[in-house]
Amino acid sequence: MAPERLIGVSDSEDEEQKNNAQTAPDDAIPIFRARAIQPTSKYEGLDYDICENELWDKEQLTKDPHLKIKKDFARWIVSLFIGILTALVGCAIAISIEEISKIKYSWLQQAVRLNINHGDLVMPYVYYVIMNALPVMIGSLLVTYIEPVATGSGIPLVKCYLNGIKIPKVVRLKTLVVKAIGVVTSVCGGLAGGKEGPMVHCGAVIAAGISQGKSSSFNKDFKMFRYFRDDHEKRDFVVCGASAGVAAAFGAPIGGLLFALEEAASFWNQSLIWRTLFSAIVSSFTLNLVLSAYHGLENFTYHGLFNLGEFEALPFEYFELPIFMLMGVFGGLSGAFWIKINTSLNIFRDKCIKQKWIRVIEAIMVAAVSASFACLMMYLINDCRPLGNDPTINPVQLFCEDNEYNAAAALWFQTPESSVRSLFHDPPGSHKITTLMVFVPIYFFLSNITYGLMVSLGIFIPCLLVGAAWGRLAASFLALGFPGSTFINPGKYALIGAAAQLGGTVRMNISLAVILVETTGNIWFALPIILALTSAKWMGDYFNEGIYDTQIKVSKVPFLHWHSPNKFLVTKANKIMSEQVVCVRMKESVEYIVNILKNTSYHGFPVVDQVDDINRNSGRLRGFILRTQLIVILKRSFFEETKRFWEQKISIEAFRDEYPRFPSIDDIKLSNDKLAYKYTINMEIFMNPSPYKVHQATSVPRIFMLFRALGLRHLVVVNDDNHVTGIISRKDFLK
Amino acid sequence: MAPERLIGVSDSEDEEQKNNAQTAPDDAIPIFRARAIQPTSKYEGLDYDICENELWDKEQLTKDPHLKIKKDFARWIVSLFIGILTALVGCAIAISIEEISKIKYSWLQQAVRLNINHGDLVMPYVYYVIMNALPVMIGSLLVTYIEPVATGSGIPLVKCYLNGIKIPKVVRLKTLVVKAIGVVTSVCGGLAGGKEGPMVHCGAVIAAGISQGKSSSFNKDFKMFRYFRDDHEKRDFVVCGASAGVAAAFGAPIGGLLFALEEAASFWNQSLIWRTLFSAIVSSFTLNLVLSAYHGLENFTYHGLFNLGEFEALPFEYFELPIFMLMGVFGGLSGAFWIKINTSLNIFRDKCIKQKWIRVIEAIMVAAVSASFACLMMYLINDCRPLGNDPTINPVQLFCEDNEYNAAAALWFQTPESSVRSLFHDPPGSHKITTLMVFVPIYFFLSNITYGLMVSLGIFIPCLLVGAAWGRLAASFLALGFPGSTFINPGKYALIGAAAQLGGTVRMNISLAVILVETTGNIWFALPIILALTSAKWMGDYFNEGIYDTQIKVSKVPFLHWHSPNKFLVTKANKIMSEQVVCVRMKESVEYIVNILKNTSYHGFPVVDQVDDINRNSGRLRGFILRTQLIVILKRSFFEETKRFWEQKISIEAFRDEYPRFPSIDDIKLSNDKLAYKYTINMEIFMNPSPYKVHQATSVPRIFMLFRALGLRHLVVVNDDNHVTGIISRKDFLK
Repeated sequence: MAPERLIGVSDSEDEEQKNNAQTAPDDAIPIFRARAIQPTSKYEGLDYDICENELWDKEQLTKDPHLKIKKDFARWIVSLFIGILTALVGCAIAISIEEISKIKYSWLQQAVRLNINHGDLVMPYVYYVIMNALPVMIGSLLVTYIEPVATGSGIPLVKCYLNGIKIPKVVRLKTLVVKAIGVVTSVCGGLAGGKEGPMVHCGAVIAAGISQGKSSSFNKDFKMFRYFRDDHEKRDFVVCGASAGVAAAFGAPIGGLLFALEEAASFWNQSLIWRTLFSAIVSSFTLNLVLSAYHGLENFTYHGLFNLGEFEALPFEYFELPIFMLMGVFGGLSGAFWIKINTSLNIFRDKCIKQKWIRVIEAIMVAAVSASFACLMMYLINDCRPLGNDPTINPVQLFCEDNEYNAAAALWFQTPESSVRSLFHDPPGSHKITTLMVFVPIYFFLSNITYGLMVSLGIFIPCLLVGAAWGRLAASFLALGFPGSTFINPGKYALIGAAAQLGGTVRMNISLAVILVETTGNIWFALPIILALTSAKWMGDYFNEGIYDTQIKVSKVPFLHWHSPNKFLVTKANKIMSEQVVCVRMKESVEYIVNILKNTSYHGFPVVDQVDDINRNSGRLRGFILRTQLIVILKRSFFEETKRFWEQKISIEAFRDEYPRFPSIDDIKLSNDKLAYKYTINMEIFMNPSPYKVHQATSVPRIFMLFRALGLRHLVVVNDDNHVTGIISRKDFLK
Repeated sequence: MAPERLIGVSDSEDEEQKNNAQTAPDDAIPIFRARAIQPTSKYEGLDYDICENELWDKEQLTKDPHLKIKKDFARWIVSLFIGILTALVGCAIAISIEEISKIKYSWLQQAVRLNINHGDLVMPYVYYVIMNALPVMIGSLLVTYIEPVATGSGIPLVKCYLNGIKIPKVVRLKTLVVKAIGVVTSVCGGLAGGKEGPMVHCGAVIAAGISQGKSSSFNKDFKMFRYFRDDHEKRDFVVCGASAGVAAAFGAPIGGLLFALEEAASFWNQSLIWRTLFSAIVSSFTLNLVLSAYHGLENFTYHGLFNLGEFEALPFEYFELPIFMLMGVFGGLSGAFWIKINTSLNIFRDKCIKQKWIRVIEAIMVAAVSASFACLMMYLINDCRPLGNDPTINPVQLFCEDNEYNAAAALWFQTPESSVRSLFHDPPGSHKITTLMVFVPIYFFLSNITYGLMVSLGIFIPCLLVGAAWGRLAASFLALGFPGSTFINPGKYALIGAAAQLGGTVRMNISLAVILVETTGNIWFALPIILALTSAKWMGDYFNEGIYDTQIKVSKVPFLHWHSPNKFLVTKANKIMSEQVVCVRMKESVEYIVNILKNTSYHGFPVVDQVDDINRNSGRLRGFILRTQLIVILKRSFFEETKRFWEQKISIEAFRDEYPRFPSIDDIKLSNDKLAYKYTINMEIFMNPSPYKVHQATSVPRIFMLFRALGLRHLVVVNDDNHVTGIISRKDFLK
């Protein structure tokens, strides 16, 4: 304990401060200059913690007594619209894909039929390549040049957002538009990807948009829901949106709830759970309604964009459980391998391909390669099956007899989703072992090079497809090994294989289990699915993290996992805290404030009650103030000397109006330049008077739990005398 | 700010302290005497927070590197056994009830048949009364004299436990035994109650028992799972147990997970969610297996103890949604009314009936009254239906023609669960409108007087039964109003009515919705169920809280709801904190410690670094020590002066070995009495060096959130100088 020790700047820093004080004595205020203290990660945390300053108290006391009820009601209305709009976006995507695919594949089918007689299949191949490359080009151009944040599945971004990390542009309307069009083009372009992950992202954007009642992209303010304009409320709505997205994607509302829970379970409360479930159910319901109407059905059967198709009955025997676990282990291995290759590939891409146009060309190439593999497989494998035995959408005769179709072609001449469904529900013997044995590695490879291209698409469907294929293969081998056994239902094995492969790749067990149970409509099959998922997760975790977590790790996002890293087991706060703290005094000059805002990039400053001009850190901690608050104070000139001008009208609204895009310090023009620098800011009514703080001997796991449980952005570290000795932000856990 | 002010004792307290110091100068140590500082509530909080003292750090550093993996593995094993054992207990209860009921009702049926010819039904009535009263007497005697904590459904107790409140004996093995036998006797005794709520309690006890590897009731220590012996680990297992109980009761594993989530969502983490789901699925699976085997079935269809029976298809039209909402509103009203009467009745019981034997007589009387109502209804209502139209278990002909049976009698001559199933699945027109109109108020009344008797039973089934009956009634009226409409399926309306009544009574929306969806096996009917549940909750909440919350409130348990009470909106910590804090110094005399332990009932003491003998509160806060820790220190003589005796062997095990029943201070015999009082205890290595603390200006909602999110028991309040000014425990929120 050294209560009077000068902490908060390292020794050399101290030197520099002294220099400043010496070289600029006419300044009278020692200027803090940032040196090597810029945050290492470009991502910031969300301000989930509410700043309960005097203005907040004032608002609580004077506000309309019905405001609470109004807000509660508004929350439900917003949740309702989140559900409806997410479903409608989902429908638009699904219908576009369906219509475009129908045209594409029937046209290709015809081209094959017309040209097969001449024996010349070059033209259909060229058509195929063009019809793959063209939409992919459009999608890739959009994503690359207009909104790169719309790349990929979007689930890692939503995970980060829910974890409390601010990633620029992730919940903008422009992102939504690019994402939606991007997904349609990718799927229609025959890339190995699905629209499920992107739906989650779409739901999140919709939620963030509706709840704010304004669009930054279009610079339009509807003056609605102004009380929801802070990080806390917005994040809660994004939870609803993400689960509405899952519900729309899979027709799995409870799965949607659990997805949100699994990813964001730290800051829950009952009413949020309830609204999340509501959004998810509305979303699933609306989607069903619209798609059923579109297909002219009497009954509602489109429970989700992706429907595994209900399994009538899935009986299983006890001796099958070890087989399912083995399949889980294989899925874990295969998933870990997939992640390993994909990650290396993407790191290589990020390093070596700098030009945007090359990324577009790359996407087009992959689309062309997909078409080539498909054509090769159809051409070389002679897997002829009688027509009418199973429901094939676009049967291609190719070299088969009349009344037969090529089963290898059937796997390719439809969207990947339909192929998954075929693998689940086609009767036994619909596919040759050779076909599947060739298909599995090809699709494994294709999905691997595809995920990471500058296009929007998700990873669920390719994983399910690969898994379903090898699951079905396993069933075929089992049938060879135990001829005449009745338990071997290839659909069942395809389902377990799909679960294992997906679980081994994304490792989100709880929500996946529920999603798969919900989409198959068979609650009783939960046990085998969970066994397979758990084995896959345990196996996979031995080698690496799930694909989303790996992506997050590679991009150096300060993501907080469930537990603090093991290396911090007995570490204390003073070992990880950043000792370079810039404090401000209760009454601070405008000049100093402008100075620290310009010369440091910190997002929050402890407020101390010390009067010494040189070493502010030696004061006792009194509160905490955010950079954004200081900027608003400067912008509105809330100075002590001009108090009479703003005293009456000041309210917390002044701060809320600027949310979420606070101006930069460089954009602030002080009204009366010369004079204003000499003015004073009194932090008293603006600062958070009770910031979370810990003693410097507090263990890191305990601090980590505080961050997780309360969604903190900053945590002040004090000594026994309540003097500031450091500050911890989520980046410090990455050290 | 008044850093030097003497806070921590009120003025008059201060007076007394001075007096103490004056009147006992020979003591040299001013003795703190407790005066009006005994806690107001008899319930204590759990120590969910881990005390990270030096011993803990030592254990972390020196322990077996594989211990973490071992512990993880042990957790899964324990979760597995929780699932299996909960299911087995459930099976035992279910099979006992089934067998006894079968004998009882077939015997009664025969008695009616034999006596109806003489026209004399007195004997069957007497038999009925005896067969109701006898088992109820056994159950009531057990509950009243052996383990009163086994009364009622047990869900409120589990809720409290998960909320972090220590209720004595709630998770003891003896409680489990009494509960299980009690439930069998109550249900067989024809009381209006079910076995579902008690199953949740059984699951919780099983979980607490297995995870500790020892039984306090039988004084048996298996030396297993010793590292799970603290409140933190135990509570996590109880979460698994409670959801395994729900899963066993309803065959709804996801509902079980959500039940735990709804009640205990504040201290979650991903691996706990995952283990909870695992326990729930294992439980549901085991139960299915055993019951299916017992019934000699080939397929597994016993998904839960209570099975609503799967609805094949439940189509609904859009114009029905408002009807469902209206039914929800009615359910809310009816539920609120039910709660109002029941609560008044139970408050009256608690006040006026002191003798235990009267409570037993009361239970027997209610059992007799149930039988009387049943007989009256059968006798007076002539509701004859042809046999074979619907599946009745024990058809009674009574005054009906041959080949007919009395539908009113059918409602009574089976367990309430079977009656619910009948109301859901019997074909339209199985019940006269009059029968249902008489049945609803009678059962409403019976269930109301039954809940609160000294017997173990739950409230789910009677609520479902009343609701199903009036739902079916609503369908009959609708059918009269809109003759010829095809949409009116009485089973569907019975389901909505049941949901509405249950939702209006227990108000646990999220888990109920999922449980009902899972038990009906129709995910698509979730929307109507949720609409009905939400309307019921909103309507009911207008009048009072749910039955469980009302019970908790009446018994003055310091339960923390989701949000801090509105009245505390801008209140600060110093308004609710208890200012009478007893602090101890870093080095404190044994005499003082024994004194405060004997004369106060506080469960934790802030440790300060002050040397003044008179006013310990003026020191800076350095740590926090629990009463239980001090007791162990005294018991083991961990004194500074005897350091060389224990220095080597001291470890955190010493504290864990006493868990959960720490001796009382009166049981501690200091080894060397005279001498020992002069010894010193050094808190340094025992205390928690970084207790959670807040500044006295912190707002209460923020403190409340800390308590909720971190499961705190004590929170120290300090001023700007880090001096202790007060302490907050969960009771202070009830002020």
